[in-house]
Amino acid sequence: MSMHPLAVPLLAGHRRALARAVTLVESSRPDHEREAQHLLADLLPYAGRSRRIGLTGVPGVGKSSFIEALGTWLVGEGHRVAVLAVDPSSPRSGGSLMGDQTRMPRLSVHPSAYIRPSPSGGALGGVARRTRETITLCEAAGYGVVLVETVGVGQSETQVAALTDLLVLLTLPNAGDELQGLKRGITELADLCVIHKADLDPAAANRAQSELSSALHLLTPRGASWQPSAVQVSSLSGAGLEAFWERVQSYFADQERVRARRRAQTAQWFEELLQAAAWKAFAAGLDTAALAGLRAEVRAGTLTPVQAVTRLLEPPTEGR
Amino acid sequence: MSMHPLAVPLLAGHRRALARAVTLVESSRPDHEREAQHLLADLLPYAGRSRRIGLTGVPGVGKSSFIEALGTWLVGEGHRVAVLAVDPSSPRSGGSLMGDQTRMPRLSVHPSAYIRPSPSGGALGGVARRTRETITLCEAAGYGVVLVETVGVGQSETQVAALTDLLVLLTLPNAGDELQGLKRGITELADLCVIHKADLDPAAANRAQSELSSALHLLTPRGASWQPSAVQVSSLSGAGLEAFWERVQSYFADQERVRARRRAQTAQWFEELLQAAAWKAFAAGLDTAALAGLRAEVRAGTLTPVQAVTRLLEPPTEGR
Repeated sequence: MSMHPLAVPLLAGHRRALARAVTLVESSRPDHEREAQHLLADLLPYAGRSRRIGLTGVPGVGKSSFIEALGTWLVGEGHRVAVLAVDPSSPRSGGSLMGDQTRMPRLSVHPSAYIRPSPSGGALGGVARRTRETITLCEAAGYGVVLVETVGVGQSETQVAALTDLLVLLTLPNAGDELQGLKRGITELADLCVIHKADLDPAAANRAQSELSSALHLLTPRGASWQPSAVQVSSLSGAGLEAFWERVQSYFADQERVRARRRAQTAQWFEELLQAAAWKAFAAGLDTAALAGLRAEVRAGTLTPVQAVTRLLEPPTEGR
Repeated sequence: MSMHPLAVPLLAGHRRALARAVTLVESSRPDHEREAQHLLADLLPYAGRSRRIGLTGVPGVGKSSFIEALGTWLVGEGHRVAVLAVDPSSPRSGGSLMGDQTRMPRLSVHPSAYIRPSPSGGALGGVARRTRETITLCEAAGYGVVLVETVGVGQSETQVAALTDLLVLLTLPNAGDELQGLKRGITELADLCVIHKADLDPAAANRAQSELSSALHLLTPRGASWQPSAVQVSSLSGAGLEAFWERVQSYFADQERVRARRRAQTAQWFEELLQAAAWKAFAAGLDTAALAGLRAEVRAGTLTPVQAVTRLLEPPTEGR
């Protein structure tokens, strides 16, 4: 079977081919889906050779400014940088403020950068699948750094951690002794923390960096292969970006750690797709009204979850 | 329909009735399962009125000694205390070192205490389900404190956090600045941390308590309704047990917080049981050899997870 017509131009670095390929992968039309799988199969041997870096933090922490500053510095150093956004709540036919090129004016016009807003959900695997496939396309197109931005709500950090080699958490220092923008659980996922907008209040930034680094050190098990830490960055001045990238380099220096993480992610992704397929088949045969009624009874406490599921699976033989 | 014969004796506090009920609930014989559901339905209106406290920590941290000391103190204060163990790896017909009565000699013979080792897995919902049902039985039998001990490996902390109102993490101080026994993610689940065996090295214990409390404070989002903290306990001398229990009391003082957590746990448990039922139905129709082959190809990188699942669901029309 011959290669998909977009494959060679994409591999050769033609930007339009990449953009068309991403559009194809994001489409939920069945014929487009088959075509996309053909293209991805052609490109798979050329994928995998990038650093996949996730970036998260609550709105207001300055992710776009950070990506603009980091991305611009990286392309200046000769890297080719792709920026993708994952917004699980993105409406099907709407846009998303993330990956918004107006917020990254310099980077979005640089020939070595490619910025793509969030895909919408859809078929099997949803947003996560489309993002994974877009990463494959960017890697085949020769982008050596893929930044995946997420909005920091819901389970988005967990999802982006599962798609990337390294997860960066951006926070802001406070006048007090608390860090802004931390959710329970997020610090355990983060591989590197950035105290952002460090220029606004250097004393607070120093304090935050010191305390967060101590906390991360204390909470990292002895014998762990990687010690998460915190660095200060000002995207306005550029201070701290090189030190940040040095930490990233030292993380990727251990190639086996990255390979092992990717193997685990792939295996986990396979199990998740199986579970999704199982649920889809099961849900197709369900009486949705009955399920809604049982859910309500569980919520009201009139049925235990076990009773509710048992009732769902075995139609009652006696009157209720 | 009349009440199950064990219901009234159990509600009246007869120990043998409770023991027989727990045995019934743990059985995977279909007739026993139906009988158990009948009994649980009878007792459900009398359940819910205990403090469900999870206890976790790696082997060697002294969970049994802590439970013995805490439990003995609590029954002395007039509480009725049940101790259950969750060991997801517990073999079907074996025992488990957890909940081992020989390690809690005083508590196991106290009339106000009831200790039960880990159930084995089995049918829908496995160990988690049987533990939940045993908690229901203990509550109906009038035990006001239910301690659920877990072994600290795999996903056991997450499972016990889902079954309890409050999760306690036991750690040991080290001579250095690291805490022993921390896994990535566990501190985010813990509601209260105990620096155990504090008598062994008071200076190290003080340091560990101070540093862990700072870290927990830093990592708890502003506006969180509960601030996890660390206390020192020596089970040998009993020092710190009262202060520990005071922290527990203050957690339970906010009844709505506990109720909200239980509502969320019940809803989540329902969704997990549905997923398990979906998977069971799906797996029954699978060609397990084909699935194993596809898993191997995914692991080897010759198929992407999406390709593998697509192939599994749609038998190939052309030669492979």
